[in-house]
Amino acid sequence: MKRFMNEPADFVRDMLEGVALANPDTLEYVPEFNLIRRKAGPSDGRVSLIQGSGSGHEPAHAMLVGPGMLDGACPGDVFAAPPLEYVLGATRSLRTPAGVVYIVNNYTGDRMVFEMASEVVRAEGIDVRTVLVDDDVAVKDSTYTVGRRGIAGNFFVIKAMGAAAAAGAPIDEVVRIGEAVNAATRSMGMALTSCSPPAKGAPLFALGESEVELGVGIHGEPGRQRTTLSSADQTVEVLLGAILAEHDVNRGDEVAVMVNGLGATPINELYILYGSAHKQLRERGIQVRRNYVGDYCTSLDMAGVSITVVKLTDEIERLLSEPAQIPIRVF
Amino acid sequence: MKRFMNEPADFVRDMLEGVALANPDTLEYVPEFNLIRRKAGPSDGRVSLIQGSGSGHEPAHAMLVGPGMLDGACPGDVFAAPPLEYVLGATRSLRTPAGVVYIVNNYTGDRMVFEMASEVVRAEGIDVRTVLVDDDVAVKDSTYTVGRRGIAGNFFVIKAMGAAAAAGAPIDEVVRIGEAVNAATRSMGMALTSCSPPAKGAPLFALGESEVELGVGIHGEPGRQRTTLSSADQTVEVLLGAILAEHDVNRGDEVAVMVNGLGATPINELYILYGSAHKQLRERGIQVRRNYVGDYCTSLDMAGVSITVVKLTDEIERLLSEPAQIPIRVF
Repeated sequence: MKRFMNEPADFVRDMLEGVALANPDTLEYVPEFNLIRRKAGPSDGRVSLIQGSGSGHEPAHAMLVGPGMLDGACPGDVFAAPPLEYVLGATRSLRTPAGVVYIVNNYTGDRMVFEMASEVVRAEGIDVRTVLVDDDVAVKDSTYTVGRRGIAGNFFVIKAMGAAAAAGAPIDEVVRIGEAVNAATRSMGMALTSCSPPAKGAPLFALGESEVELGVGIHGEPGRQRTTLSSADQTVEVLLGAILAEHDVNRGDEVAVMVNGLGATPINELYILYGSAHKQLRERGIQVRRNYVGDYCTSLDMAGVSITVVKLTDEIERLLSEPAQIPIRVF
Repeated sequence: MKRFMNEPADFVRDMLEGVALANPDTLEYVPEFNLIRRKAGPSDGRVSLIQGSGSGHEPAHAMLVGPGMLDGACPGDVFAAPPLEYVLGATRSLRTPAGVVYIVNNYTGDRMVFEMASEVVRAEGIDVRTVLVDDDVAVKDSTYTVGRRGIAGNFFVIKAMGAAAAAGAPIDEVVRIGEAVNAATRSMGMALTSCSPPAKGAPLFALGESEVELGVGIHGEPGRQRTTLSSADQTVEVLLGAILAEHDVNRGDEVAVMVNGLGATPINELYILYGSAHKQLRERGIQVRRNYVGDYCTSLDMAGVSITVVKLTDEIERLLSEPAQIPIRVF
């Protein structure tokens, strides 16, 4: 395992510091809580949005902080839920009279810490709510999860809630929107390789020369089966088939589609997959109205992909199209 | 080598089709010439900008087409210069009375085909010019190059020329700006792994468990030396040291810095490197005014990085900050 880092123990800190140094006007880094927060904060008193999963999924979530998106993210170490004090620190730093919403991917460890934090800060008079994300159709229960896992689909939940919060929606409404987008969102992934956590220094699992893990989790959790890599068209057929089998998307519907790289997949391959997905959905009479191709929620240096399909309503489409701004940008 | 594709021979076509399907309102795909062009074209009669290197470097260059950037790109096959007819087709498709400028990375094959094309279209009455990009300080002559190679720094040349062309600058001025930005831009890269061209199906070269290729080319060309991977801080020190040794950047100067992934490097590692670069430049009294962190010019599935430093003048800074739009986007 070769990677660009200093000490493995400093991986997350060095990364967060890099994000802050790259965005001195807009972001603030609070090392004490692994917190990346908007400098401006939710200072206008609107609802505040916080996400704090493990690290190793960048750009999710420390790089999704900005106007119209998250107000802050307080990631734990690589693939580890944030400690309670991080969540408390982040919440106190970003509290507003309108309330705070935690956006939590459905993993037992994350849920537990955010539930504990909720009890503590509620006693401090903060109106705090939680929206759970569980878009991954691959498996029902998993290594770290009861129910479905939350993966790249959380981008859409954050984007829509961020737009609503930025527009001054009250907390009940922001929560309603988050739950509606999560309910309209399904994903599934496939790994070509394992990832190698910095502190471990070795792959979490091994795949053969032409083997893939279908339905892999973003922490390397097992999926549905090990199978042989087929063509891009066939890969998309399998992933879309699994997603649509558990999705209320029908002929005539409009969708948003994300083709998400898991960390080490070149963008040319992602566009090959997008082309397949677009055409296969068209053949099913489903129109792709918005598309997202790139790395959104990764698993360190894993080569692989996940596909996400969001069923669009007028409301969701409108919220997704509102302007927003985050560290990840081209220009 | 596992990757998401259909037939290796269709790799480029499938990717370009995917790009076009993802951008139906703004881009047009002309399969005959591997051409991705702006639908609107340079229809307002301003100078037109075309880039056509080999494929495999995405987002460069087929994904850099849009308002304020390229008018079209007609890439050859993976790592291969475009055939003459592609360049002729692209030029005729995008000609305007104000003229056409080719932005060509300094590789012998690319230079040859664009020189041949220039002769042909000049005879057709098109005012055509060429701006060469040669930002890579690693080696003087290389496998496919006389002089320095052109790598990720070409993003800045395209961006500045695109802004000038969009503002209606005459062709002499657009060319002057391109040459000025190229002269102000220096880069160098490092590979952690080789890349594997789809048609070959195997790595171009081999690196040991902790070995890196310092100064690698974006087609896997050898660099300055094979050495052992050290820390992120030390890696940046070596790359920045080499760049600044051949750059007129001094204490008090302002620069733009790009930390460019070569295809399989996760964004968290790129931000670790960016943090190092920012701090090391600051220690040298050099201020980073603009930063670019992500994949801009890749080498297929190579894990690695290049760093680019642009010395900013008021003019370059202004052109880099103009709005522009390309397929690669987050929202």
